Amino acid sequence: MGKKVLIIGGVACGGKTAARLMRIDSEAEVTILEKGKYLSYAGCGLPFYVGGVVKEYSDLMTTPIGIVRDENFFRKVKHINVHTSHMATKIDRKNHNVIAVDLTSGQEKNFSYDKLVIATGASPIRLPLPGSDLPEVFTLWTMSDALAMRAAIDSGKVKRAVIIGGGLIGMEVVEALCNRGLEVSVVDILDRPLPAMIDPAFGRYLLKALQSKGVHFYGEERVLEIVGHNGEVKSVKTDKREIPADMVLMAVGVRPNTAIAKDAGLEIGKSGGILVDEHMRTNDPDIYAGGDCVEVNHILTGRKTWQPMGSVANRQGRVIADNIAGIPSTFPGVAGTAIMRAFEYTIGKTGLTKEEAIKEGYDAEAVTIVNSDIPHFMPNSALITIRLVADKKTRRVLGAQVFGKGRADKRLDILVTAVTGGLTIDMLGNTDVAYAPPYSTALDPVTHAANALKNKMDNLMRSVSPLELKEKIEEGWNPLCVDVRTPEEIITQGQLPYDCVNIPLGLLWEKASELPKDRDIVTYCKISVRGWDAYSILRRLGFEKVFVLEGGIEGWPFELVK
Amino acid sequence: MGKKVLIIGGVACGGKTAARLMRIDSEAEVTILEKGKYLSYAGCGLPFYVGGVVKEYSDLMTTPIGIVRDENFFRKVKHINVHTSHMATKIDRKNHNVIAVDLTSGQEKNFSYDKLVIATGASPIRLPLPGSDLPEVFTLWTMSDALAMRAAIDSGKVKRAVIIGGGLIGMEVVEALCNRGLEVSVVDILDRPLPAMIDPAFGRYLLKALQSKGVHFYGEERVLEIVGHNGEVKSVKTDKREIPADMVLMAVGVRPNTAIAKDAGLEIGKSGGILVDEHMRTNDPDIYAGGDCVEVNHILTGRKTWQPMGSVANRQGRVIADNIAGIPSTFPGVAGTAIMRAFEYTIGKTGLTKEEAIKEGYDAEAVTIVNSDIPHFMPNSALITIRLVADKKTRRVLGAQVFGKGRADKRLDILVTAVTGGLTIDMLGNTDVAYAPPYSTALDPVTHAANALKNKMDNLMRSVSPLELKEKIEEGWNPLCVDVRTPEEIITQGQLPYDCVNIPLGLLWEKASELPKDRDIVTYCKISVRGWDAYSILRRLGFEKVFVLEGGIEGWPFELVK
Repeated sequence: MGKKVLIIGGVACGGKTAARLMRIDSEAEVTILEKGKYLSYAGCGLPFYVGGVVKEYSDLMTTPIGIVRDENFFRKVKHINVHTSHMATKIDRKNHNVIAVDLTSGQEKNFSYDKLVIATGASPIRLPLPGSDLPEVFTLWTMSDALAMRAAIDSGKVKRAVIIGGGLIGMEVVEALCNRGLEVSVVDILDRPLPAMIDPAFGRYLLKALQSKGVHFYGEERVLEIVGHNGEVKSVKTDKREIPADMVLMAVGVRPNTAIAKDAGLEIGKSGGILVDEHMRTNDPDIYAGGDCVEVNHILTGRKTWQPMGSVANRQGRVIADNIAGIPSTFPGVAGTAIMRAFEYTIGKTGLTKEEAIKEGYDAEAVTIVNSDIPHFMPNSALITIRLVADKKTRRVLGAQVFGKGRADKRLDILVTAVTGGLTIDMLGNTDVAYAPPYSTALDPVTHAANALKNKMDNLMRSVSPLELKEKIEEGWNPLCVDVRTPEEIITQGQLPYDCVNIPLGLLWEKASELPKDRDIVTYCKISVRGWDAYSILRRLGFEKVFVLEGGIEGWPFELVK
Repeated sequence: MGKKVLIIGGVACGGKTAARLMRIDSEAEVTILEKGKYLSYAGCGLPFYVGGVVKEYSDLMTTPIGIVRDENFFRKVKHINVHTSHMATKIDRKNHNVIAVDLTSGQEKNFSYDKLVIATGASPIRLPLPGSDLPEVFTLWTMSDALAMRAAIDSGKVKRAVIIGGGLIGMEVVEALCNRGLEVSVVDILDRPLPAMIDPAFGRYLLKALQSKGVHFYGEERVLEIVGHNGEVKSVKTDKREIPADMVLMAVGVRPNTAIAKDAGLEIGKSGGILVDEHMRTNDPDIYAGGDCVEVNHILTGRKTWQPMGSVANRQGRVIADNIAGIPSTFPGVAGTAIMRAFEYTIGKTGLTKEEAIKEGYDAEAVTIVNSDIPHFMPNSALITIRLVADKKTRRVLGAQVFGKGRADKRLDILVTAVTGGLTIDMLGNTDVAYAPPYSTALDPVTHAANALKNKMDNLMRSVSPLELKEKIEEGWNPLCVDVRTPEEIITQGQLPYDCVNIPLGLLWEKASELPKDRDIVTYCKISVRGWDAYSILRRLGFEKVFVLEGGIEGWPFELVK
């Protein structure tokens, strides 16, 4: 008789733990208690079901050959006992027993265990706003949430949606709602989307992209009330305006579901998640926990953090199963990676931003570059922006942000791996990434970013990020902005709202004498490759106070003059 | 007065060295001698020009804003002296002088230098076959080659093309020629394409893909003659057949252009390329060399190798410029990365194959997996095959091959970075790669490959690669192949040509008793995820002689029975 393993939660970490255990422990008896009706579904796919990209909700819970991963499947194929609609309410650690309520019958049941796995996930936060109990006020976290939201949209009555909260979940739904023909507004107390994930410049890149799609973003506004009429949502009232709405998505964050663990006396970490060791074990040696309900190590800071992601949950489930099966296995932590798509734009992050790195005590430097993802002569070539961060002392890559229409996910994953492997920017610049025109430029954008940061750190290039330029000018700096694009480009691409002079690069050698040597000069072009040439030419000609604007006009996150 | 830097060759490494020098050395005077008419063009883009994906040849030599990088551009914008159609013929090291012939006038000229850079590139090998001097016998290496080849196709007279050589350049042109409506045949002395780059299984994946597009591949055949009639190509005669042809591409390899270096007494390495140190310096401290004409370190083996790639040449140009400018800089080497696209298929490699690793003294293990690139519920989800190699002792990733319709380039670059960073498979399995449904599965294919290799190395899973299964059966092994797909899948996907029994996974628990316990069993399904479940179930049921067929039917490189 093998050990009895009881798992609370059957979506990501729980399902993975169970499946892995059945594969590697030929004795274990595995039981899953899931409070919801649905098992082992792709939670991250819910926005795509709402948006109609995924046609049937069952597609999110089938195997690749179309078999639904329901109770019957788990029992018959996997020999795992599954009880859906069973809500675990109490862990009796002394007697190795869990009490659960069968939500269908209301009956209380006992489940004994040798090893227990807590995979209770997280829950969305519902602000206690007036009107938040109206039927068309949704959260989007579970399959049931998605079914309700899609049904509301399918009814045809919903024309205007307001999303409260500019975080990852809210932003992932914007495209879905737009694709369904809704007019979408977003309200956030900060001035840009994704404030917890990326830095202000990258938040503004996304903001501009959303606005270009007709999305309204009301930043620095606080929602006061969801106004209803005859039991239907009519508008969302903020401290600055009233936004007409037929539907509201409350996306102000999620919280780990730790009540049952806390009640059982298990330790909770500072981040709010259940505290586990590197084996994913709680302070009770017979109880493991994983997925959205636990906190994890950040591999760069060593600090505990909370990163509720399906990918992390799956990796942790594997580690838990291994340890229960007697195979020593550890979960080293996360790199703080996140990614999302909005329309044709990708935005993502790994590791630390420069500001986060400095806060952690690193002597961090960063650079922003814009580059084609594949050569400009290939069809579908598109730009991506990368901001790369490294430590000045060790030169190790500390993190990166990516944005753009180009294939930014690949570059992000190269950088995730670089962070994990402890690559220096020098190693990264010479990493032998795969080159052929359908896949990258001869020097990949990641190579280019590493080289630019080397130039900057080695004092070969003095540069300012867009945010630095804006802030310094607002603080009184008065540089001359030397734009080396063609006049035609300025008309189509727009211009910085500062003191600019246009000298196309080809004319700079002869016209440089017209420029002041006693005034700071900022050079740039569309992506600041010519801007970097201009910097070099001016330096050659004896100009000492020259800076490159990183990323050029394409990397500018703010309004341009057109 | 700054130092005089003379560069022989102005395509990739030469152009990059010059541009970088002008940016970082405000004194240097830079001169380029280029024997051809064209400068700084994207050689890797030539097949796409031939195929019509790139409309104008000038697109391959313009900056992203459309300015042609010709002599005038280099002189005016970069202040670099460029002499095209100037063939350097002799290096006088003692007097720091290079003699070049102006190919337009026939005049000999002298160019003095303080520092010399040899970036003479490589040249395609032309087999001295009868008929090889016919006008429609091409090589594809330079812009002039591409212009001639495209002109021949544009003439409308060419209907059938024969490519001699199944290497990277030949294979890169197949799609181009097919896209132009030509009937394409490939002849190689080996039995599969890309024999120098990838292992036999992956060569066969590409072979099957090409054949599915109507391309003829005549393996294990030797070309004896290109038969002409009235000065036109009529056919290609091999030792087995005569293939009608209106045009021939000779793609049997390239050789580094080292004659001028050799004549000057510079050391040539064993691989045939110019020998350079980590600073890209030859045995003459005033002479650097880079690009296709030099040999490089392989970062895994430490051996010298030759990897003629535009990306490598560009990275080396930067290192050369830095060193000339007095900034100590090194080129650590290459990881043996290569990639190409054929139609919708990607094929690539980094590091070592298992066989190469064993030859280098590693105790190497490998696994082949097939996985969706993004979740099956997302549009455009497609399969990719990864073969991952690691060292059993250190568990470090040694290399990988990728193939498939899915986004395999991203996975390859993750693996390149893992090889560079010295990641173990354990680290790779927990690398926090970015997950959202448009970009990856919850466990990315790379994570999945790392986990599968961990299972294999840790003896949790016994498996055979497709090649191993075929070879062992040919040597007399007689396993029962237990196929756990549905009967419908077998009809559409085909079946292994061996002794197979079909038990859909859902029936395996009850039907396993019908299977022999004293005979070796090989389990599989479409991609062997259910095959791995079946393995686990049979192990649970007391079967000891069980193996998983890695990659399943999708990973099978040979013919299937339909």
